[in-house]
Amino acid sequence: MTSRRPTIGVFDSGFGGLTVLKALLEVIPDADYLYFGDTARLPYGSKSVQTVARYAVEAAHFLEGHKAELLVIACNTATALALGQITSAAHVPVVGVVEPGAEAAASISKTRKVVVIGTEATVCSHAYQKALEARGLQSHEKACPLLVPLVEEGWVDHSVTEHVARIYLNEAFADGFRDADTLVLGCTHYPLLKPLLRRVAPARVSIVDSADSTARAVAARLSNLLQPVAGEERRERARLRFFVTDSVEKFQRLGQAFLGRPLENVQHVDLKE
Amino acid sequence: MTSRRPTIGVFDSGFGGLTVLKALLEVIPDADYLYFGDTARLPYGSKSVQTVARYAVEAAHFLEGHKAELLVIACNTATALALGQITSAAHVPVVGVVEPGAEAAASISKTRKVVVIGTEATVCSHAYQKALEARGLQSHEKACPLLVPLVEEGWVDHSVTEHVARIYLNEAFADGFRDADTLVLGCTHYPLLKPLLRRVAPARVSIVDSADSTARAVAARLSNLLQPVAGEERRERARLRFFVTDSVEKFQRLGQAFLGRPLENVQHVDLKE
Repeated sequence: MTSRRPTIGVFDSGFGGLTVLKALLEVIPDADYLYFGDTARLPYGSKSVQTVARYAVEAAHFLEGHKAELLVIACNTATALALGQITSAAHVPVVGVVEPGAEAAASISKTRKVVVIGTEATVCSHAYQKALEARGLQSHEKACPLLVPLVEEGWVDHSVTEHVARIYLNEAFADGFRDADTLVLGCTHYPLLKPLLRRVAPARVSIVDSADSTARAVAARLSNLLQPVAGEERRERARLRFFVTDSVEKFQRLGQAFLGRPLENVQHVDLKE
Repeated sequence: MTSRRPTIGVFDSGFGGLTVLKALLEVIPDADYLYFGDTARLPYGSKSVQTVARYAVEAAHFLEGHKAELLVIACNTATALALGQITSAAHVPVVGVVEPGAEAAASISKTRKVVVIGTEATVCSHAYQKALEARGLQSHEKACPLLVPLVEEGWVDHSVTEHVARIYLNEAFADGFRDADTLVLGCTHYPLLKPLLRRVAPARVSIVDSADSTARAVAARLSNLLQPVAGEERRERARLRFFVTDSVEKFQRLGQAFLGRPLENVQHVDLKE
């Protein structure tokens, strides 16, 4: 690896990965970013492992083809279902969001009992359960399929969303998990619901958003890969390019809430369909 | 057209078109049906006209390749955004769901004011507005993006869904449309919510589900295309084959509620991706 200013490829099914990009920009501001959002085929969370793996590998090849030196799978579903396949198919290092999220939960939880909320596909894969078990934690995974459409409707602080979240969390923090003390947001849409989930979750519960821990994991990985960057180049602002498979206009309109700033340099691409 | 027993191709982004297939089976039981559900790329309702048109034309070619003699676009979004492109690309007659739905509304409405609910893409296309205007009706189109995920969560008679429907319908039956007397269900998922919508909509309002009117339009079209069918062949049960682009198991599990019977002969297919 020769470049001193790294090019990081970030992949998500659509918009949610922008919350991970936001965390990356804070932790690693001196990099170039390529973001690929597969908006023509989203959501992944209700789809099968075969389909998600195929889509994710195509996206990884696209980002590698655009000179990404490290890939961040900023999508819990794609990480949970296909990290192994993506890593095998890619020629550059790949970082997913599940391991960093589990690591953060393990460092926080005292009762060693964790609730994970995510899409149907993420929950069915039990990727979080395995990652948490390897760290000695018990977990209860709960699929919350309505939360993504509620975020996309813009109802991030709405009584309907609160009602839905209450139903899901009541079911999750039940039986053997009444004393769980950590809630892992296992979907990159959910950080937008953090204030609402803070109100709805039991008061003792810490909320873990894997975006921050993923960004730190990427920084650690980069420090092994690249020589230190210093001087002018380091201080330069991050350069961002976005590629989406559906409407550019809609991505710019909806994406802003996830990234927390306007999205420029957005380009429509067709994969080899 | 030589076949006496017609083969009808039915296309939808996923499950919703099964409500149209159910109506077709009642009106035209003496046919063979090929149903194509593009479950790996659903939903269409939040996507752009270019993407939806490309997907729909691929599906039309697939069904023609399997000897469909008439295509039913059992998806409001695909009909609203791409009926013209599908019709141009196909070599057999194509029937969509918007015109039959508008026709049914026109035959019922006395105040000549109609509310149409549908996906974001269907509403943005104004396909219903144009079809209703051509029949001398005014319409208020309202996007209801949460209703599809609520149906898919199985919450068809749930207090959350009632709350959401009340919010949407209050907004729709407002201002100049307080005296609208007809509600068109402009999405094939919505028939599953009919009892709930009946409770929530103003009492004077008639609910139009385009599945029935589409089935009658198909029957009329077939009678022009085919010679009358009689005797043994006519009495034979409809033969059904299903093709889906994502999980067969999930399609069988969720599809049953839409079709009202178990789904057999389901096959996974990849389009040319």
